[in-house]
Amino acid sequence: MSFALERRLALDHHPRMDHFQYRGGVLHCEELALPELAQRFGTPLYVYSRQTLIDHYRRLSEAWTPVAPWLCFSVKSCSNLHILRIMRECGAAFDVVSGGEMARALEAGADPSRIVFAGVGKSDAEIRDALGAGIGFFNVESEAEMDNLASIAESMGRRAPAALRVNPDVDPKTHVYTTTGKRETKFGVDLERARRVFHDFARRPGLDLCAIHLHIGSPVNTVEPYIQSITKGLGLIEQLRREGFALRAINIGGGYGANYEDHQAPSALDYAAQVVPLLKGADLTVMLEPGRMITANAGILLTRTLYTKQSGDKHFLIVDGSMTELIRPALYGSFHFVWPVQPAGGAVPPQRSASLKMEGGMLVDVVGPVCESSDFLAKERWLPPVIRGDLLCIFTTGAYGFVMASQYNSRPRPAEVLVEGDQVRVIRRRETYDDLVALERAAG
Amino acid sequence: MSFALERRLALDHHPRMDHFQYRGGVLHCEELALPELAQRFGTPLYVYSRQTLIDHYRRLSEAWTPVAPWLCFSVKSCSNLHILRIMRECGAAFDVVSGGEMARALEAGADPSRIVFAGVGKSDAEIRDALGAGIGFFNVESEAEMDNLASIAESMGRRAPAALRVNPDVDPKTHVYTTTGKRETKFGVDLERARRVFHDFARRPGLDLCAIHLHIGSPVNTVEPYIQSITKGLGLIEQLRREGFALRAINIGGGYGANYEDHQAPSALDYAAQVVPLLKGADLTVMLEPGRMITANAGILLTRTLYTKQSGDKHFLIVDGSMTELIRPALYGSFHFVWPVQPAGGAVPPQRSASLKMEGGMLVDVVGPVCESSDFLAKERWLPPVIRGDLLCIFTTGAYGFVMASQYNSRPRPAEVLVEGDQVRVIRRRETYDDLVALERAAG
Repeated sequence: MSFALERRLALDHHPRMDHFQYRGGVLHCEELALPELAQRFGTPLYVYSRQTLIDHYRRLSEAWTPVAPWLCFSVKSCSNLHILRIMRECGAAFDVVSGGEMARALEAGADPSRIVFAGVGKSDAEIRDALGAGIGFFNVESEAEMDNLASIAESMGRRAPAALRVNPDVDPKTHVYTTTGKRETKFGVDLERARRVFHDFARRPGLDLCAIHLHIGSPVNTVEPYIQSITKGLGLIEQLRREGFALRAINIGGGYGANYEDHQAPSALDYAAQVVPLLKGADLTVMLEPGRMITANAGILLTRTLYTKQSGDKHFLIVDGSMTELIRPALYGSFHFVWPVQPAGGAVPPQRSASLKMEGGMLVDVVGPVCESSDFLAKERWLPPVIRGDLLCIFTTGAYGFVMASQYNSRPRPAEVLVEGDQVRVIRRRETYDDLVALERAAG
Repeated sequence: MSFALERRLALDHHPRMDHFQYRGGVLHCEELALPELAQRFGTPLYVYSRQTLIDHYRRLSEAWTPVAPWLCFSVKSCSNLHILRIMRECGAAFDVVSGGEMARALEAGADPSRIVFAGVGKSDAEIRDALGAGIGFFNVESEAEMDNLASIAESMGRRAPAALRVNPDVDPKTHVYTTTGKRETKFGVDLERARRVFHDFARRPGLDLCAIHLHIGSPVNTVEPYIQSITKGLGLIEQLRREGFALRAINIGGGYGANYEDHQAPSALDYAAQVVPLLKGADLTVMLEPGRMITANAGILLTRTLYTKQSGDKHFLIVDGSMTELIRPALYGSFHFVWPVQPAGGAVPPQRSASLKMEGGMLVDVVGPVCESSDFLAKERWLPPVIRGDLLCIFTTGAYGFVMASQYNSRPRPAEVLVEGDQVRVIRRRETYDDLVALERAAG
């Protein structure tokens, strides 16, 4: 490890996770008080901090400087055009998983040659569009897809730059739904098969098969699975090179954790400190696909308490946000820290933690208006007393938040606003009842 | 039980579940072959059968004739305007759970006085709109909501017709996420508290508190929990009447099952045969909230196979439909029967069953293109051999299908089409990449 890296590690091991901080007992986003945003834009509301996005991107970029990687921002984590533009301005490349995401990245001004197209189910139309646009890499997940990609490229007189997704058979110990690098998943091919794929396909005229892609799941809150995965990947590359294949790049994937609780995830430097040495000197273009690590802490969901209720021994806060705005708790059992924006008695949280319990608090479930029991945002939390009208902040919802929103129960999707210092602007307006039915009215 | 009802029961115990049937080895919706619809409208595609909707509604209506109930169609199960219009033409009342659903019902021509507004988190604006429209009933879930409803109605010089949602503390033995009538849920108040609520609120000038509402969960595939629930509810009504309250109506809720597999759910007659006798002569307007029972079998999701793949010992069919079109398998672990539209060797399924295994079949997972392991439509099914390009039908997706769709992974939502005999029309056009970003472009 370089001296400079060591010094930064010491200084920056627990960098500030975001710019959502209490000041005078009131939660702010950068310079703006959240109650003012709720007043102005209504609730539920997604609020993003521009500076937090930039801070996280810069930390990543600095930590990885020694291998000068492509930081391919994972569009699926947070795909708003205005967020993508910030990422582009920071210097990001882009990781897309669909034609829709590619269209977004291009509209945000991405250089197509620095777009990586991943995903197990690329349609022929998506492949043609991506070839036409001149994207940087296809991450290819199966023999059938490799064959299809080659055929389409050949029919267009093109040569598709391709990375084979290899399944390193590493258990990232995350939710079963977001584990993707074990042997029996729909993703990638296993190590034994990977060599055969190179032998079968690397000479196809429509393919420039020159890279491998590794991705093990998300979020992965330890560095060890990456070390295992990359070590296996580098071993494969060495073997393939010995067998005469020209390998130019390695995509080590994404899945890096975020601080849903304080100090939960390794920092960018923690990952880099252990992984960079493996990759330095490998004579490979290195690609990463960070998403959550940049965006999760850069967004919050602001919601207002509609009713309080006791049922049996349980206390409920019924709020105007729901599983339609944020499905992660219902779908993955995910933890999001929740706290009042202006807590009674000035009880600001000393830390963000699942086990936080403060004097005078109440044990509550925070639930939404949707008509099913899966509609909860938080269960069994100790919160300061909350009354009707109080605002709550659902923290760390910048990643896999709005992008997974639905209109279930005919709920218009919320607005998204972006804060920059003491300025705020709408980056997606709130939907209306008319928006819900517009495509039905026009039809039939 | 009347003779006529008994006779119908004998004739109609296992009525035809829908009009999606194989003819000459090809799956049809009413008179139209599904491959033609896929060709014409693309995939993934939601296809609804008008006749199936009407059949299910009529069976319900006939089975319940003796108590002449309001059949309040549960808009959340399938909210397309064109479907709602069919329900209205059949004579349905409507059960809505949000302002958005109320707007849909009204646009579909519903008589506002036959709309019931349920939900634990009604906002002040929604309550004002509903009072202004003159809706039939508010189903009220808590003391706090009752107080708020009364105050708003009083401020408008109105009297809100209200049903108190009572939690009968019955276990419907369905998914924990869709169980709603046990004691410790966010829904309703328990039986002991219900009396107190009548004493505290029934004389408020802004309230016409004249009904109770029961709802225990969904889907409930046995009749017994309803009998328990209604028996408790009638006991409460009797007691309240003795105490001088004027009870005019009972809403027995919804949650009636559908045939995801053959003969899985009781028929409309099965429910009615046991429940109608309890309610006849009770001198109450009876309301039901059927949704799934009418719509589930009336819709299918049509998807095309993009790739086939083996990984470890597992076989995958990667199709162009995903969790973004149908989240029920990922969110609830729901079973949907899946079969090729034009099965190899003419192997049409002898029944729809989770345990179906035919000679020459292959054990497969049916998964979508979305980049996570939760993206599956079916796991470990024996299907006839399927190759790239083959169409699959995901059956019984008319309820909680499209209404829960998202644009996750920037996937445009699919089209919905409605078949009537040999005619078909688009009732919601397919979304485009432009639709995904329109509200972001306009902002900022």
